[in-house]
Amino acid sequence: MSSRPVIRLRPKTDPRRIRRGFPWVYDNELVVDRRTKALEPGSIATLEDADRQPLATVAVNPNSKIMGRVLDLDPEAEVGHDWLAGRLRAALDLRDMLYDAPFYRLVHAEADGFPGTVIDRFGEACVIQPNSAWIEARFDDLADVLSEVSGVTTIFKNAGGRARGLEGLDDASLVARGALSGAVRVPMNGATYLADLEGGQKTGLFYDQRPNHAFVQRLARGTEVLDVFSHVGGFALAALVGGATRALAVDGSAPALALAAQGAEATGVADRFETRQADAFDALTALAEEGRTFGTVVCDPPAFAPSKNALDAGLRAYERVARLAAPLVAPGGTVTLCSCSHAVDLDAFRTACLRGIGRAGRKVQILRTGFAGPDHPLHPSLTESGYLKAMTFRLLP
Amino acid sequence: MSSRPVIRLRPKTDPRRIRRGFPWVYDNELVVDRRTKALEPGSIATLEDADRQPLATVAVNPNSKIMGRVLDLDPEAEVGHDWLAGRLRAALDLRDMLYDAPFYRLVHAEADGFPGTVIDRFGEACVIQPNSAWIEARFDDLADVLSEVSGVTTIFKNAGGRARGLEGLDDASLVARGALSGAVRVPMNGATYLADLEGGQKTGLFYDQRPNHAFVQRLARGTEVLDVFSHVGGFALAALVGGATRALAVDGSAPALALAAQGAEATGVADRFETRQADAFDALTALAEEGRTFGTVVCDPPAFAPSKNALDAGLRAYERVARLAAPLVAPGGTVTLCSCSHAVDLDAFRTACLRGIGRAGRKVQILRTGFAGPDHPLHPSLTESGYLKAMTFRLLP
Repeated sequence: MSSRPVIRLRPKTDPRRIRRGFPWVYDNELVVDRRTKALEPGSIATLEDADRQPLATVAVNPNSKIMGRVLDLDPEAEVGHDWLAGRLRAALDLRDMLYDAPFYRLVHAEADGFPGTVIDRFGEACVIQPNSAWIEARFDDLADVLSEVSGVTTIFKNAGGRARGLEGLDDASLVARGALSGAVRVPMNGATYLADLEGGQKTGLFYDQRPNHAFVQRLARGTEVLDVFSHVGGFALAALVGGATRALAVDGSAPALALAAQGAEATGVADRFETRQADAFDALTALAEEGRTFGTVVCDPPAFAPSKNALDAGLRAYERVARLAAPLVAPGGTVTLCSCSHAVDLDAFRTACLRGIGRAGRKVQILRTGFAGPDHPLHPSLTESGYLKAMTFRLLP
Repeated sequence: MSSRPVIRLRPKTDPRRIRRGFPWVYDNELVVDRRTKALEPGSIATLEDADRQPLATVAVNPNSKIMGRVLDLDPEAEVGHDWLAGRLRAALDLRDMLYDAPFYRLVHAEADGFPGTVIDRFGEACVIQPNSAWIEARFDDLADVLSEVSGVTTIFKNAGGRARGLEGLDDASLVARGALSGAVRVPMNGATYLADLEGGQKTGLFYDQRPNHAFVQRLARGTEVLDVFSHVGGFALAALVGGATRALAVDGSAPALALAAQGAEATGVADRFETRQADAFDALTALAEEGRTFGTVVCDPPAFAPSKNALDAGLRAYERVARLAAPLVAPGGTVTLCSCSHAVDLDAFRTACLRGIGRAGRKVQILRTGFAGPDHPLHPSLTESGYLKAMTFRLLP
């Protein structure tokens, strides 16, 4: 312990924010001397205030703007096996409380006490995204403890996260424990999805939309469904299980649509399910030209505004989606529009959606505003991490 | 039609807001001459812009700050039987889509195209709150059309709404159609609630919390539940159906708790249900002194900040609830804190809750942010009418 490095706040940096639980220390808040600069990325250190009072146990990455990540408010915490196991058990307890089957986001980074770390669970398999140097340095320990605590036998390391570049980490994904053979079957809301853990977007399936899938599932009974940016059929399969008469899934990715079609088979709804591989904007335009309408329309695009710089262009893209989707909604039907852009807050997103629908000449009621499911908890100091919004509008007759 | 009164916007009032769907016209936006002042409250008129171009069909109340309420963007709409029936059918279609049983808010005012009008449905009975002069003047027509469209046989007029005073209306509630005999049984989330339509708060039951009840129902499995400001047992009975081991309902109202106990009987969970009649703040303090803890705590107080003037005091009260509730939550358990204050926005409410929990020395994850259910749609121009917030926090071990 005595040999542990120390990093120190500048005299002007208020230590109270850290004491209250804010999990990040930026480089410009720290005294960055040669010794600090020389620390190995991912080193564990003691954070002190300017008066040399210990504040917390932190992970240090001298190459990152977020130079310190608070791991524990106990300045003497030992970040070893027991610490990792304790945090994982707390995360697992929550998911056990929430779900009947082991398919969920198990660790949602800072909010679960694991800065920069995401773990998704698919039954006996887990995908770890180690997006910060401290957890990259402890990846093998984490994998061992994860197997021990949860009993999973297969662990895939997904190194595709954009944050890894900012931390100076490579992008080499690999199977770290056990073996993967083909897509995994994932039960959710009564449907069965196929998730490709090795080759898919992010971690192969988006658990975050679970409550929003469930809501649309209910709305879609007896209607024809259009699911744009469908990926592996998230909204479409849920809707078909709920009693939708037909569903058309549109996506630009042929592999994603192939998984969606396999999911429809596995769910027993393949006879009511179609796919169309196309650019989403082109498909929305083409469907309007074909004179098609649907009782239930969903558009769940990728992040159009991944950063603040992209905000204006992103909002215009959300408005365009809304404008193109609205004419496809049958009178009295619904459209559910989603954003997973960190930089777009709820008010801005709602305004963009309403403007787009208004430009299409339709009047609406707002039925529901949903967020990511509770296996994606928020850290109380990082409420902007509530990136996902799903708004459902009913278009009046 | 030609004999219909006309009201006119002042030259400086931009008519585009009305064209885009904003449903209110304030007195200071109108030319208020002797003729307008002499209009009977609730009169139907044609709204014109300053250039005498017709904009909309409006209801006029010269005694109200909201002098015009837009009923229809068609300036020649005839607000009679067919108009009322059309609006009611559209509202009914939405609820048929959402729910299997006829227990819901059927009309949620402006968002359902019925300015100032609330209708809750309890199977064969409805409670109408006519909170605006135009619908008060047409109450009998509305009651007839409501029976015709929905088949309900009993209609209660609840004249207890605060808004009626602002519209110059009396507070005489009455049974308008059929007969009421005792409390009504209301199925929701698998529980059976007892609603006193004549004597209860508002319309006897709060449908708005339905999705939030459902979420807590899931969280509460295997835990002991404390439901403060319980009214007729909303969260407690849902939790018991979901598998909570026990529930304690606290409320200041003996009649409400008696209905909660009857609901527990009707639900078949009376052996696991207790009530305590007390001031909520006193009860929270007393339970802490008794050393009690609960895996699931819910506080759903009345509006502490019903107006902007009461905002600061209201936020302090929400913080106090959070501070007193947090010590009663077992490690790893949850607390769900609600606000039904129009004036308190989500950010302010979250901050108050987090501050209160922080003062109690507890660390949290934010699990979920919920709003009123989809039978309480929002008008797109009145998104501040999203008054209800329910935030669930997990208190870390």
